[in-house]
Amino acid sequence: MATKQNIEEGSEFTPKFDDNGLIPAIAQDAKTGEVLMAAYMNRAALDLTIQTGYATYFSRARQKLWKKGEESGHVQKVEQILVDCDQDCLVLKVTVDAGQCHVGYQSCFYRALKKGTSKELEFIAEKVYNPKKIYKK
Amino acid sequence: MATKQNIEEGSEFTPKFDDNGLIPAIAQDAKTGEVLMAAYMNRAALDLTIQTGYATYFSRARQKLWKKGEESGHVQKVEQILVDCDQDCLVLKVTVDAGQCHVGYQSCFYRALKKGTSKELEFIAEKVYNPKKIYKK
Repeated sequence: MATKQNIEEGSEFTPKFDDNGLIPAIAQDAKTGEVLMAAYMNRAALDLTIQTGYATYFSRARQKLWKKGEESGHVQKVEQILVDCDQDCLVLKVTVDAGQCHVGYQSCFYRALKKGTSKELEFIAEKVYNPKKIYKK
Repeated sequence: MATKQNIEEGSEFTPKFDDNGLIPAIAQDAKTGEVLMAAYMNRAALDLTIQTGYATYFSRARQKLWKKGEESGHVQKVEQILVDCDQDCLVLKVTVDAGQCHVGYQSCFYRALKKGTSKELEFIAEKVYNPKKIYKK
């Protein structure tokens, strides 16, 4: 059993999966630092990511392994996997091409809450590709 | 009821809280782009964050609102709140002082999986403060 001390200060990778067997994983552009997306991994997805060097997540909607880019071609080459203090969240530093979000933007975080409002979003990015051309199904 | 189209392409902020009433929130240094931590917010935490301009989370361990820095003094001034395509994850661009992680590092992500291994972490940062001096309880 890993102690708090070991988990936080140790050098053994003991990722903590939640009650559903998932750990959140944040993909960050290794070059620009832009946060591209956040998703979840189960043990198998994490193992595949480590083994192949390309990000594989677990789709909660489809309840299956999901290699990022398997349909769109927009894969994520994993340069580094970071883990946080309590080892219940991962950051993946990834190298990517243009268009990581299925809506057409480079990042899924293409909108920001407008200053002084609590309900209004403003778009802070432009689309970088046409998803209709890529997702044919 | 918000449609997928509205959620993804619209300008209404309709954050989606999970079955536990929580939404993940990633704090990113507004200047450097470094991912500092990942935590959760409930509706009240998000409202307080928007109203006060300082990050408030919901501590799952303590089951209560947690203003970041209430004990350590290491608050997060929120410059911008981003939301992702399906509005179930937030990125907070924050301005911070030194030492965001309770272990003593600037970021909670101070370790990375060593290349070619699946279980060994290497430290990629140095401590920036002594947590024993700050957390007196």
